[in-house]
Amino acid sequence: MKTRKKEPPHKKKSKLGLPPGSLVFTGKQKLEDPFVTVSQYNVEEYRTTPFQKDLPAVDPQYVTWIDVRGIHDSELIEKIGRTYNIHPLVLEDIMDVQQRPKYEEYESGFYITLRNYKYDGELRTIIPEQISIYAGRNFVFSFQEDQEELFAEVITRLDLGRGKLRARPADYLVYALLDRIVDGYFLVLDQIGETIEELEEEILTDVTRQTKGKIHDLKRELLTLRRSLSSLREAMSLFIKSDSEFVDDNTGIFLRDLYDHCMQAFDILETSRDNLTSLQDLYISELGFKSNAVMQVLTVVATIFIPLTFLVGVYGMNFDYFPELHYRYSYFVLWVLMIIVALIMLRYFQRKKWL
Amino acid sequence: MKTRKKEPPHKKKSKLGLPPGSLVFTGKQKLEDPFVTVSQYNVEEYRTTPFQKDLPAVDPQYVTWIDVRGIHDSELIEKIGRTYNIHPLVLEDIMDVQQRPKYEEYESGFYITLRNYKYDGELRTIIPEQISIYAGRNFVFSFQEDQEELFAEVITRLDLGRGKLRARPADYLVYALLDRIVDGYFLVLDQIGETIEELEEEILTDVTRQTKGKIHDLKRELLTLRRSLSSLREAMSLFIKSDSEFVDDNTGIFLRDLYDHCMQAFDILETSRDNLTSLQDLYISELGFKSNAVMQVLTVVATIFIPLTFLVGVYGMNFDYFPELHYRYSYFVLWVLMIIVALIMLRYFQRKKWL
Amino acid sequence: MKTRKKEPPHKKKSKLGLPPGSLVFTGKQKLEDPFVTVSQYNVEEYRTTPFQKDLPAVDPQYVTWIDVRGIHDSELIEKIGRTYNIHPLVLEDIMDVQQRPKYEEYESGFYITLRNYKYDGELRTIIPEQISIYAGRNFVFSFQEDQEELFAEVITRLDLGRGKLRARPADYLVYALLDRIVDGYFLVLDQIGETIEELEEEILTDVTRQTKGKIHDLKRELLTLRRSLSSLREAMSLFIKSDSEFVDDNTGIFLRDLYDHCMQAFDILETSRDNLTSLQDLYISELGFKSNAVMQVLTVVATIFIPLTFLVGVYGMNFDYFPELHYRYSYFVLWVLMIIVALIMLRYFQRKKWL
Amino acid sequence: MKTRKKEPPHKKKSKLGLPPGSLVFTGKQKLEDPFVTVSQYNVEEYRTTPFQKDLPAVDPQYVTWIDVRGIHDSELIEKIGRTYNIHPLVLEDIMDVQQRPKYEEYESGFYITLRNYKYDGELRTIIPEQISIYAGRNFVFSFQEDQEELFAEVITRLDLGRGKLRARPADYLVYALLDRIVDGYFLVLDQIGETIEELEEEILTDVTRQTKGKIHDLKRELLTLRRSLSSLREAMSLFIKSDSEFVDDNTGIFLRDLYDHCMQAFDILETSRDNLTSLQDLYISELGFKSNAVMQVLTVVATIFIPLTFLVGVYGMNFDYFPELHYRYSYFVLWVLMIIVALIMLRYFQRKKWL
Amino acid sequence: MKTRKKEPPHKKKSKLGLPPGSLVFTGKQKLEDPFVTVSQYNVEEYRTTPFQKDLPAVDPQYVTWIDVRGIHDSELIEKIGRTYNIHPLVLEDIMDVQQRPKYEEYESGFYITLRNYKYDGELRTIIPEQISIYAGRNFVFSFQEDQEELFAEVITRLDLGRGKLRARPADYLVYALLDRIVDGYFLVLDQIGETIEELEEEILTDVTRQTKGKIHDLKRELLTLRRSLSSLREAMSLFIKSDSEFVDDNTGIFLRDLYDHCMQAFDILETSRDNLTSLQDLYISELGFKSNAVMQVLTVVATIFIPLTFLVGVYGMNFDYFPELHYRYSYFVLWVLMIIVALIMLRYFQRKKWL
Repeated sequence: MKTRKKEPPHKKKSKLGLPPGSLVFTGKQKLEDPFVTVSQYNVEEYRTTPFQKDLPAVDPQYVTWIDVRGIHDSELIEKIGRTYNIHPLVLEDIMDVQQRPKYEEYESGFYITLRNYKYDGELRTIIPEQISIYAGRNFVFSFQEDQEELFAEVITRLDLGRGKLRARPADYLVYALLDRIVDGYFLVLDQIGETIEELEEEILTDVTRQTKGKIHDLKRELLTLRRSLSSLREAMSLFIKSDSEFVDDNTGIFLRDLYDHCMQAFDILETSRDNLTSLQDLYISELGFKSNAVMQVLTVVATIFIPLTFLVGVYGMNFDYFPELHYRYSYFVLWVLMIIVALIMLRYFQRKKWL
Repeated sequence: MKTRKKEPPHKKKSKLGLPPGSLVFTGKQKLEDPFVTVSQYNVEEYRTTPFQKDLPAVDPQYVTWIDVRGIHDSELIEKIGRTYNIHPLVLEDIMDVQQRPKYEEYESGFYITLRNYKYDGELRTIIPEQISIYAGRNFVFSFQEDQEELFAEVITRLDLGRGKLRARPADYLVYALLDRIVDGYFLVLDQIGETIEELEEEILTDVTRQTKGKIHDLKRELLTLRRSLSSLREAMSLFIKSDSEFVDDNTGIFLRDLYDHCMQAFDILETSRDNLTSLQDLYISELGFKSNAVMQVLTVVATIFIPLTFLVGVYGMNFDYFPELHYRYSYFVLWVLMIIVALIMLRYFQRKKWL
Repeated sequence: MKTRKKEPPHKKKSKLGLPPGSLVFTGKQKLEDPFVTVSQYNVEEYRTTPFQKDLPAVDPQYVTWIDVRGIHDSELIEKIGRTYNIHPLVLEDIMDVQQRPKYEEYESGFYITLRNYKYDGELRTIIPEQISIYAGRNFVFSFQEDQEELFAEVITRLDLGRGKLRARPADYLVYALLDRIVDGYFLVLDQIGETIEELEEEILTDVTRQTKGKIHDLKRELLTLRRSLSSLREAMSLFIKSDSEFVDDNTGIFLRDLYDHCMQAFDILETSRDNLTSLQDLYISELGFKSNAVMQVLTVVATIFIPLTFLVGVYGMNFDYFPELHYRYSYFVLWVLMIIVALIMLRYFQRKKWL
Repeated sequence: MKTRKKEPPHKKKSKLGLPPGSLVFTGKQKLEDPFVTVSQYNVEEYRTTPFQKDLPAVDPQYVTWIDVRGIHDSELIEKIGRTYNIHPLVLEDIMDVQQRPKYEEYESGFYITLRNYKYDGELRTIIPEQISIYAGRNFVFSFQEDQEELFAEVITRLDLGRGKLRARPADYLVYALLDRIVDGYFLVLDQIGETIEELEEEILTDVTRQTKGKIHDLKRELLTLRRSLSSLREAMSLFIKSDSEFVDDNTGIFLRDLYDHCMQAFDILETSRDNLTSLQDLYISELGFKSNAVMQVLTVVATIFIPLTFLVGVYGMNFDYFPELHYRYSYFVLWVLMIIVALIMLRYFQRKKWL
Repeated sequence: MKTRKKEPPHKKKSKLGLPPGSLVFTGKQKLEDPFVTVSQYNVEEYRTTPFQKDLPAVDPQYVTWIDVRGIHDSELIEKIGRTYNIHPLVLEDIMDVQQRPKYEEYESGFYITLRNYKYDGELRTIIPEQISIYAGRNFVFSFQEDQEELFAEVITRLDLGRGKLRARPADYLVYALLDRIVDGYFLVLDQIGETIEELEEEILTDVTRQTKGKIHDLKRELLTLRRSLSSLREAMSLFIKSDSEFVDDNTGIFLRDLYDHCMQAFDILETSRDNLTSLQDLYISELGFKSNAVMQVLTVVATIFIPLTFLVGVYGMNFDYFPELHYRYSYFVLWVLMIIVALIMLRYFQRKKWL
């Protein structure tokens, strides 16, 4: 079992006294340089251009999707903001990785932030990554913290023209990206479910001092996940009810489906948490049982031998006038007596189910 | 007691990266070939045709009910979808057995999914089966996971023309199917109630290490059941309030009754859960009592004999100058003394109710 | 203490597969033949006719009140239903004693079902009886499970013309009946309060193994009562807000008062439940205290005598070269030493408040 | 510590079967004769008349305030009701001291009932007194259970013409009375806070068996207080939102302030309750710690001396062939050995922090 | 570890019987003389004047900001109230440091009260300071309890003309002040998070009796913080929804952002509380583990040596006829036997994992 290097969980870089809208990256830089991919597509074609100095203009013929991996570079973020006229508060939120999932509407588009999760089963840790999406008429920006190609499958679908992705407006791309992330939650929840099964096994066969710590760790992780999912649910609900001009009516039914998936993930999470709580009770009662078992052994042994030890002590006394010591069969009779006493006691403990 | 083969509870087959609406069966195939029954009826007649290659058209003279048992065959599901113009998301949901109960309206009809339950008392396991119902003008589709003839009684009523089933529109058939499923919940809850009674008996007479595990198992099952019933309640509430053109006003009063039954089942479930929680407390306090009892026995025996053993130890010493050893009645007096000490202690323990 | 014959608490007779509206009595028959009283009154007179074969027509000059005790006879219920045109679902509910309290409106009247309670202090059991009331223009039906003359005082008030009962329409009679039942709740809650006091006394003076079982029993009963009162509160709230033509505006203020009483009963119930929970904690901590007390006795005795026993053991050894054995005052000195050791220890334990 | 004479907490005198509106005093009579003070004031003058047989008419030139202390005299209450045309249900509520705090509007005025509290720190008991206020155009009635001059300061303010009390309409007097009562809550909560501090001190220094009982008592009191405050909050909220003709718009802002005070009191109460719960946990863990400490003493003593006793027992055996007994330094060597064993064990326990 | 001087937490100076609007300072005076700063600014200039006898009139050309540090001087507060026509209830609230955070609107402006927090990690205490802000057309008053220059950064921004602060109306200054305070919450929550980490470390390595007290202390602090944040959230929500003429539409988006920060702080707080609760469970189970460990040591030692002691006792008896004593190898055989018994037991305990 690897040891976990703990980091203070809610370390928020001090923004004390800065005017609002100040761009400060509050996370841990996960890659050297930001990595920007610009894709443009419509029903007929799909083209992707590697990012060079200049940001492309939004072309009404195409849906333009700019995917930014690495959000620590405040200059880049600011440039994007300036070029596409994004509200400073949105830019601030993109760089602040401590955001709660939320949905907000602005004049030029709408903003969604949520988290992608991976699970490290060995350390029982959930690794979050903040994803921000800002979309409007014909454009979508997505911002990820690290390098991983989270949206590879979406790109493949765009490239091959599979499904109806290319035929639909920008908000459907947003849906596709969100769908990818939410689907990932089920994977994480599955893995957590397996860890819980393992813990249950461990409790029932071989409780150790570490077991409790593991439950504690996992509980803390689920707690964080829960808060995040709970906010996401709220955000998705706002998204569905949105009457923004940038959200197409036809996308609504898909969003509702996505919302259902969130609810489902939340349900599974709640079940996991309740299972974990129930596991804790199981753990406590296992301790109680173990403690009882230990005490029973002690009691049985002590209760049988202490009286016998008294008896043999009696006949170890050195009184001058001590008739029993001189009878021929005293020793033999004493053994018989002691064996009978021991047997009666064993019988008694057996009836009490202590043996 | 059979041992339970545990399966990871929320195993969701990976649909990561598939476009939405992809038909993937997420459950465990329970029968070889799907089994399709086509029934058509109106107030005058009822006919059932075994399913052959072609799906019958919806005949406005009749209510057409197509009951599909076995939902692992994505081709069949897709064919049904194509033939009767069902939204792809509905088809996806039908095949995804991890759905939460829900009610949704579409252009051509409405969709309800819920679960049927059986209870295996020996393993204290609730066995769920997902049921999906899609209904519209003059037609009802029902999808079950396994082969069991769940709706046999409904078919009998249709066949014999009992009740008003044949005289009413398609939504009343939906009501009849739901009523059959919800009635089944009470049976399951009854059986669970009996298991709880047995557990209470077990705790009060003979707690074993397994007892806690059993409570834990049952609690987990009730938890799952609760989430499902809770969603169902919501879904039913939406169904009742529906102003869909496919839901007849006259059916409303029956749906309200059905909703009441759901509430009632939910109440019983909650009571069962609370009883289970109370049982756990009882269990913990039984452990505490047992532990106290063990310790009392140890304390009584040790407290009586340890001082006596000390006393006899005293007279076992080998000092040269040891006056008591030489008196005539020392031994006898010592016995009297020891018996008095023991009696006083016994009296003390009796007053403390430790005996 | 009488032993309680436990019955499965939620035994619902199987109605699986019956068409809705089927009349099945789901309770335990409590009297031989149903007992029907027909009363008719207006501001001027009150007459009561024993029930004979034919049910009287509703006479617009009078308020007709038909009180049925014993609801197991489905023929009678059906006949009443047919004669006065009551919806089949109401009839089904009247005979199903597992109903949650509810209020429903129909074309010809409104339907209220709730429970009357008695408390058996010896067994700590609440005995429920389902009461159904169906009322409309100029008529009231009341259905009770058993023979007890629950509404005797109401009849007396009608007979003597006391209060304004006779001067008001049928809905005021409904109010009077409900008022009688709700007043009975306070009696039951009072008696439960007394049982709780007794249990507290018992815990503080003489905890036994049964105590926990008693708390568990009472908790379960309160749980059931709570669910029932909670539904009743909801039902009453619907009743108050009703704009049914059968509920007079002048009755509204009385219903609000009745609703207040329900709330008050609910409050007392909640307080009782919290008290019971607090009692459980008290119980657990009493166990802990007792366990500590036992262990302290053991520890004190063992800790004093084990070292002394060691000491006397030392001088019981048979070494050839053992100087102390031969000194004149060895034995005496040893006693002094042992008494000093014992006193020091006693002092130590006293300082620790273990004595 | 005085012993508390416990009374059944929710003793409601039986009103079973009485028609609604019957005047029955449900409390314990606290003074011989009711004490009625009649005050009349306007911006210019204030006069108070001792109550004689006849109740004064309401004079539109003045605000008339009738303060009744002692509410057990149903004749008096009935007379007041008749004279000033108060609804019978209000009169019934005034005499029923088990009322939940509430606000109700009637044709001729509005009715508020709430509780005044005193705290007996020695018995950890909250002593409630029901206050009822009925007010309308130019008149205010207040009803108190006992003789205490609760509203002395209000009278002084009226008398001296301090503040704006005399210049405002009747509803402002109601506000002043309520303000007086709610201010008293903070005093009670302060005193309870002190008791909690004392209990915490007691737990951390010297837990006794009584401690738990005290926590239990206080918890029960807070529970009752909480329910009452919770209802009051609701009632105040209704009062604020009232559009009754008897509530002046200018009073609204003061009522909002009063509502804030209620909320504040409620908050403090909740904090007290949570503190108490946390105290209970502290108590339980203190017990656990104490239990561990006791066991550690036992274990240390027993573990050191039991092996040594075994050793000396060995050399107390009487075998004919027992070489060690005859060596010159056996006895000395044995002592050295035993001391080494004891030291090793002490070291071990020290490392385990059991010493 | 410093010892904490506890003060009764909710000491509210008695205002019993005072007319509402009476100015009574309910806190502890933290500085000698109040310290008043008057700033005036518009987009072009910023000037600050030290406070002299006379309060400046509000100049429509400027935003006037009067910052008062030290609120114990009721004369000053009253003077400010008179000069700028502030409602007496607001003045009363400013001086009452026990206020719950709230937002209220008056004719001439709006009033917000909330708390600023500092955290003393050594004592695990949160030190609150009440901040009141009253603002209207072109003016802002802020009231702080102590001398600390809480708003230094805001003054710098005003002075240097950084950000858009000077270009915006008075309500934006209010936003800037609130933003400063809320940002401070994250700092406090971070520090608390670190304390929790330390406590977890302490529990897992070296539980002491103090640990529980520390958790208890921190829990109480978080409780108080939680109530305050919860009220603040409510207040902020009212502020956002305000349609007061003094709140500019353009400020709305910033307030929403501020509200988000509140929510975020609240989330972190909740997570901390849950972590603390989980820590308590960890603590209890550590105690249980320790208790088991102690008992296992006792049991192992006692169970091995008690039977052996019995055996050696047997051969210490003084019977005349005691054959074994006379055999040549008895002593040697006994040792072998005892070692075998001991080894078997050790093996047994090893299999049970007690060693």
